[in-house]
Amino acid sequence: MRLVRVARPDGPAFGLLRDGVVVAIDGHPFAPFELTDHVAPLDRVRLLAPVLPSKVLCVGRNYAQHAAELGNEVPAEPLIFLKPATSVIGPGEHIRLPALSNDVQHEAELAVVIGRLTRKVAVEDALGAVLGYTCANDVTARDLQRSDGQWTRGKGFDTFCPLGPWIETELDPAAGLAVRCTVDGEIRQDGSTADLLFSVGQLVAYCAAFTTLLPGDVLLTGTPAGVGQLRDGNQVSVSVEGIGELTNLVAADT
Amino acid sequence: MRLVRVARPDGPAFGLLRDGVVVAIDGHPFAPFELTDHVAPLDRVRLLAPVLPSKVLCVGRNYAQHAAELGNEVPAEPLIFLKPATSVIGPGEHIRLPALSNDVQHEAELAVVIGRLTRKVAVEDALGAVLGYTCANDVTARDLQRSDGQWTRGKGFDTFCPLGPWIETELDPAAGLAVRCTVDGEIRQDGSTADLLFSVGQLVAYCAAFTTLLPGDVLLTGTPAGVGQLRDGNQVSVSVEGIGELTNLVAADT
Repeated sequence: MRLVRVARPDGPAFGLLRDGVVVAIDGHPFAPFELTDHVAPLDRVRLLAPVLPSKVLCVGRNYAQHAAELGNEVPAEPLIFLKPATSVIGPGEHIRLPALSNDVQHEAELAVVIGRLTRKVAVEDALGAVLGYTCANDVTARDLQRSDGQWTRGKGFDTFCPLGPWIETELDPAAGLAVRCTVDGEIRQDGSTADLLFSVGQLVAYCAAFTTLLPGDVLLTGTPAGVGQLRDGNQVSVSVEGIGELTNLVAADT
Repeated sequence: MRLVRVARPDGPAFGLLRDGVVVAIDGHPFAPFELTDHVAPLDRVRLLAPVLPSKVLCVGRNYAQHAAELGNEVPAEPLIFLKPATSVIGPGEHIRLPALSNDVQHEAELAVVIGRLTRKVAVEDALGAVLGYTCANDVTARDLQRSDGQWTRGKGFDTFCPLGPWIETELDPAAGLAVRCTVDGEIRQDGSTADLLFSVGQLVAYCAAFTTLLPGDVLLTGTPAGVGQLRDGNQVSVSVEGIGELTNLVAADT
């Protein structure tokens, strides 16, 4: 099942995407829902970030080759940080390059969307908390990430968390899904979820051990090797096999 | 003006506290509001956290003596981190000591409550974004804060952000307000906002330079010297001169 969130005249609405057609749903996808008779072809709707999370939990250094490319050791436990909800944007929205940074980089990631309130869950039960998966770009001001020590600002600028294009509920990251990033059509990152150091289940359980996960919360699972700089005018796309492609334009901040 | 948030049979409601009486308001305090005829004495209502923030921004090492007591330098710029909204509790609720930590500590702080959507504001205009002030306890698992490197987990456990008892809108932190913490009646922290390294205006402007501040967002301004361990059964109170006292009990996690 593919769940979208779209702009409608009366406000954002969730929908089900089937055969290129969006069928609006009554309410939200975190509980059993009914379809409505509002139907539109996908190419006639504006897709929003597929969810507005109360928090975006992220994990650093969850692919060995990416840890190595930045000169870091592989961590013994998941290295968790937060991006503020105000950093979330949807497909087609602009990533803004802040004047405060000279080195804003892309990080293609598989994102987990939490489906139900979850606190303290065993690893073997953790996937039961997951509604589905989407693509994320963990945009990072690498210079500020390094100089600040804490990653909140370098990872937390407005527009630094593109999510989309939709939530795919039928997906098995353990099977090894390609996670790719292209910039202006050129492949920059080409990894596989088979190389995740900590699995989705392990990450969900680790986070739920300290913080209550709410429906719609998002967990970014880390980025494979190949991160690099984004420049004004770039078009950056993150794709995860089995989900689709999340594309954003890059522009100077205004 | 003192603004409270109280539990009512039909859900949380904002109110105005005057002469020991809570008058419920129609709507929320982030826009002009009308008073209702729901009135109750303060000692007959249950106070909730005075606001449910979309994000809790915090600053580390904003008092020189506290930086020194933990062996840290004073930072050249504000050191910003986030606590998840799920860590917020109100007056009288229990701070839970997670089994994952052996050293949970209190940090008494002045908290700023943002009143309006704010992005990129000059220091001299930044106080215009502030609705008022409340007391906060930036509860910290010091051992995990140190071992994780990123502070998200050590600062982010459920119950690790007591806020309250109310929002005081008429307050001038620059005048030098006493910020105190007592544990079982014994004074542990006794500082003054006169010693803030970065002022409230500077902190608001610094944060609004990277992230959009939303009405109800909270900014914790750092803790003075004297942080120390909390133990099962303790009663911990944070007071800020001109606001009041925020008291919580400490209990083992369940």
